[in-house]
Amino acid sequence: MKEINVRTNSRTEMIDITSLVQAAVEERKVKSGICVIFTPHTTAAVTINENADPDVPIDIISALERAFPQTANYRHAEGNSPAHAKSSLVGASELVLIEDGRIVLGVWQSIFFCEFDGPRSRKIFLSIISGD
Amino acid sequence: MKEINVRTNSRTEMIDITSLVQAAVEERKVKSGICVIFTPHTTAAVTINENADPDVPIDIISALERAFPQTANYRHAEGNSPAHAKSSLVGASELVLIEDGRIVLGVWQSIFFCEFDGPRSRKIFLSIISGD
Amino acid sequence: MKEINVRTNSRTEMIDITSLVQAAVEERKVKSGICVIFTPHTTAAVTINENADPDVPIDIISALERAFPQTANYRHAEGNSPAHAKSSLVGASELVLIEDGRIVLGVWQSIFFCEFDGPRSRKIFLSIISGD
Repeated sequence: MKEINVRTNSRTEMIDITSLVQAAVEERKVKSGICVIFTPHTTAAVTINENADPDVPIDIISALERAFPQTANYRHAEGNSPAHAKSSLVGASELVLIEDGRIVLGVWQSIFFCEFDGPRSRKIFLSIISGD
Repeated sequence: MKEINVRTNSRTEMIDITSLVQAAVEERKVKSGICVIFTPHTTAAVTINENADPDVPIDIISALERAFPQTANYRHAEGNSPAHAKSSLVGASELVLIEDGRIVLGVWQSIFFCEFDGPRSRKIFLSIISGD
Repeated sequence: MKEINVRTNSRTEMIDITSLVQAAVEERKVKSGICVIFTPHTTAAVTINENADPDVPIDIISALERAFPQTANYRHAEGNSPAHAKSSLVGASELVLIEDGRIVLGVWQSIFFCEFDGPRSRKIFLSIISGD
């Protein structure tokens, strides 16, 4: 298991971590298998989407904001209930396939750490399971 | 593969199953790897979130209720279409990492079985893949 | 890793790929483990839900449409931002357990490829990790 530290800078933000994941996989010299990207936080998430146009992550963030508005009524006193909901919906982990020692992503795919209640210091755990 | 039975008590409910997953992992004596938590139902799901404040799961449930309202128009005659949508969005499975024979979770993370169309008798399947 | 090609026929569509996944697993003759179903696209996804009543996938699509409306304001110029958001929420991958050489699904569960910005030619990658 490898731990990666990420510093987020706004309340809501998607940070491209593809090269960090790729470097960790290459370092391990696993030919094929899967890599699990897991975040141990309940107001953050991991997702895969497009980063070629930086407006895509911005639009995803605003689409989530509309679907889970900050202004709705919530019971949890910390005021970050929408962040918890987004975390459960986007999900605490992603997995990618490994082939020939590299992660397999589509042309437009990047791996993102999603901050929903920042800015904070965050962690990501990577685990590689070799296949055959 | 290990099967766990869960009895749900309301239409919508999040049940903390962390200790059940932890016990199953310890029983298997796998040092490191991943544990997959899978539910074989189409109106239920598995997620990871906070349980320290019981208002967090309550708020997640109400946020989902607002985003996928029971009162919208649906074609499926059983009246549980929002439950099917929530199941696909939250997801039928989660995976957690295993290190030193224990599941790795953040301080605030618990694993929840999500009931969206209860009360019912439900099942959860656990599968452990050892890594290195 | 096995590659499956799928042709979608509408802008938004859920295509049942259960038998394709089952055939790929049987072909590999893995007794137990997990099968990862991953799509390399940023406006598509993979999910598990009911297909016994074809109205269920139709209702899931319309529930997603309401939660992430095409008519909201977005910055990304291609006009498919809701498709990107749905892709991140439903998720680029699913995993299913393998027991006795077959995938383990609940009575009502099917595996679906989700098209959110079609019609297009799409790909799905399958990876099988054997467990014990």
